[in-house]
Amino acid sequence: MLYYHLEARNGKPLYQYLYECLKKDILSGRLTAHTRLPSKRELARDNHISVKTVMNAYEQLLVEGYLTSKEKKGYFVAAVESMPDYRPELVQHAQIYMEDRWFVDFTANQVVYDKFPFSMWKKVMREVLSEYDIELVQRAHFLGIKELRAAIADYLCRSRGMQVSPECMVIGASIEYLYGRLIKILPRHAVYGVENPGYKKIPRIYEEYSLQWAYIEMDSQGISMESLRKSGADILHVSPEHHYPLGTVMSAARRQELLQWAEEEPDRYLIEDDYDCEFRYHTRSIAPLQSMDRNHRIIYMNTFSKTLAPSIRISYMILPEKLMTRFVSESNFYSNSSSSCEQYALAKFIRKGYFERHLSRMRKYYQKKGELLMRVLKQSSLLPLVHISDGRSGTHLLVKVDTPLTDTEIKWGARQQNIHIACLSEFCGEIKEEYQHILVLNYADMEEKDIREAVRRLGNIFVEW
Amino acid sequence: MLYYHLEARNGKPLYQYLYECLKKDILSGRLTAHTRLPSKRELARDNHISVKTVMNAYEQLLVEGYLTSKEKKGYFVAAVESMPDYRPELVQHAQIYMEDRWFVDFTANQVVYDKFPFSMWKKVMREVLSEYDIELVQRAHFLGIKELRAAIADYLCRSRGMQVSPECMVIGASIEYLYGRLIKILPRHAVYGVENPGYKKIPRIYEEYSLQWAYIEMDSQGISMESLRKSGADILHVSPEHHYPLGTVMSAARRQELLQWAEEEPDRYLIEDDYDCEFRYHTRSIAPLQSMDRNHRIIYMNTFSKTLAPSIRISYMILPEKLMTRFVSESNFYSNSSSSCEQYALAKFIRKGYFERHLSRMRKYYQKKGELLMRVLKQSSLLPLVHISDGRSGTHLLVKVDTPLTDTEIKWGARQQNIHIACLSEFCGEIKEEYQHILVLNYADMEEKDIREAVRRLGNIFVEW
Repeated sequence: MLYYHLEARNGKPLYQYLYECLKKDILSGRLTAHTRLPSKRELARDNHISVKTVMNAYEQLLVEGYLTSKEKKGYFVAAVESMPDYRPELVQHAQIYMEDRWFVDFTANQVVYDKFPFSMWKKVMREVLSEYDIELVQRAHFLGIKELRAAIADYLCRSRGMQVSPECMVIGASIEYLYGRLIKILPRHAVYGVENPGYKKIPRIYEEYSLQWAYIEMDSQGISMESLRKSGADILHVSPEHHYPLGTVMSAARRQELLQWAEEEPDRYLIEDDYDCEFRYHTRSIAPLQSMDRNHRIIYMNTFSKTLAPSIRISYMILPEKLMTRFVSESNFYSNSSSSCEQYALAKFIRKGYFERHLSRMRKYYQKKGELLMRVLKQSSLLPLVHISDGRSGTHLLVKVDTPLTDTEIKWGARQQNIHIACLSEFCGEIKEEYQHILVLNYADMEEKDIREAVRRLGNIFVEW
Repeated sequence: MLYYHLEARNGKPLYQYLYECLKKDILSGRLTAHTRLPSKRELARDNHISVKTVMNAYEQLLVEGYLTSKEKKGYFVAAVESMPDYRPELVQHAQIYMEDRWFVDFTANQVVYDKFPFSMWKKVMREVLSEYDIELVQRAHFLGIKELRAAIADYLCRSRGMQVSPECMVIGASIEYLYGRLIKILPRHAVYGVENPGYKKIPRIYEEYSLQWAYIEMDSQGISMESLRKSGADILHVSPEHHYPLGTVMSAARRQELLQWAEEEPDRYLIEDDYDCEFRYHTRSIAPLQSMDRNHRIIYMNTFSKTLAPSIRISYMILPEKLMTRFVSESNFYSNSSSSCEQYALAKFIRKGYFERHLSRMRKYYQKKGELLMRVLKQSSLLPLVHISDGRSGTHLLVKVDTPLTDTEIKWGARQQNIHIACLSEFCGEIKEEYQHILVLNYADMEEKDIREAVRRLGNIFVEW
């Protein structure tokens, strides 16, 4: 008899929790390979749950390869690789590796690797290896390699009309890393404002640093000034150019209001996250807040992990002079955290125009793929479609559906179709009716050939239930 | 008339503070190029200080190129590069770049760049560029590239007799970065113990994360158990293999005591910093604490910045299984912070035996240089030498001198000789008589040809005063 404390499921759907319990026992070796599992009926009876619940859990384990079924004989534990020498961390690895098993993962907001300009990148890396010696091994300037800071400053001038001094730029291995350094020079007891809905990583970083933070609501023009003023926030993390996941482009008027808000008090700052600014398809982008900064209030952040590759550990932030002075005295004892070789390579890659050429190719590629996905979604006869977002920038679409299913049920249904999706409600601080039943479909790393099948499976979620 | 508020000098020697004020004004453009400065006598009178004080400050500015002197005409402000467009951050840069101007910098505990195995390193980098494609750009495993973790584990087994699973190893861009991640999984209200004297970076990191910490005294066998017990510390950062800067190798008995201490309470941990373990010249190293760990108490840390190059941003830590489980669930949302390309290259570099070959060359090289420095120090007729440390490991010597000068005066004197040194007292929490008048001479990146001249200048400090 197999019995689980299903009351400990913490609000999760029964079938999902049962599935997780079974998987854990398989990976831990408690259920060894080739063991016959109880029949659906038996397990349902012993655990006081419905047969359908067991069936859903078993189905999922079958799809993922943790179980095999033999006709008329029942379900058997599969010989899962990590089983023999189980350790807790291997369970976690198993979960991470599992991501690869999805037929399509709409939550992976990543680059498409086979479009990476390998030959160009390898060419500049080889050039750097030939041309530099001592520079590759000596301690880099703590702000990052000067050539790279200068190349980025020029690029930002061309592409975003920004006037940036390389002396006010800090290169770092990741946005999280830069954030860690930034927090140390911002007012100690500041309250951080977080867009709601928004990118979940940001509040998580604040939690890690034990900072106070508050959600700020969004309206059609961008961040809600009323909500911001009510929140008591001093510092706001904001993506005016392209909000994730709503896609809102903040209006010029709202940008002005936001700047004014920041200037009202001496310790207010805006952290402008310009992630994704490179992918606009139909409209010209609006000038970033950074270029409107009159009063040392804007911290600008961006990264190459989306435009180039997540393995190239180069992000940057641009500080107003006032903060830069503080940064220099606080942080010059830390070594720069990015590889010198890759910094030189990226500087060359930008200088030679390869970066902008790559962006322009990717822009076309993403636009085409987004349009195809939109077309296929609109043609779907199964999907109870209400609305699709305009898709004029970024690499995701929002799809509103008309369904009695809850968002949790939609996600679970997708899982059974072997596709992984997120719903807008997951990006929210609290449940709001208007943000329900909206799928967030990231298509950046999706293969075009899979789009029709992925949409067919999406449709199935709503039919089979 | 040039007047400075010298009472704001905060305990600094008068001449040093005056020198800093003048330099600041030169860099800020307040004193423009070719301006004639007041004579030594005038400046002394106007500021109520001695002519000798002014002379010392002017001399230093001359040496560093901020002033020029014309016979019978006086002192003039030099045309310093960063002057025209002064911004506060440039002043700071000037200070950083200044490090290059020292004739010898005994504080720079860095590698000697021209001994870097360029051809081997470039060879493996080129191989990685040829052999890998997609692996170079896709998001790396959050613990780091598996090949590298396996290569390090094998190396640690060969060189340190450690049995390490690559699954319990975390690669990160720096020790500071790994520390930031580590702190999140250690008990929240722990008190961290810091060796006194010790590496100054460690308490600084604790301060950054607002952690409680306490100094722990050292005795001849290593960390003092009595001081440790009194301190109330729960977690101790310790370098049993080679304490910096004392050079103490912790006795086997003390290691056992330390392990027992850690096992007494459920939330006690030892962070074993094995930095420098590779450079032992005469004796075999003692087994690291990590290999004696029976009870999930040892966190092991090491880096390639000293053994290879500071620009190769690869450090690692090894966690006990219990902590690893927590680490996986806390940190798997962060991307790995080191470059994938360099991780693959380092894995190859270790696998092919290049790393150990390089270490063995460097060991001979450092040993020879240390012995030469010791010989020259002993022969110096100017240096009031009392004692030199044994130099059997690491890349620095401790030199005790008999002098009426304070440590601040010694450092200032060195500055006037255009050499940069640290005194042991700087590594201490509070002033202790026994740690006074001891020079810490790092010789790793010093050129052999400069040793005699550097020691001559060291001697001058004590003669001219």
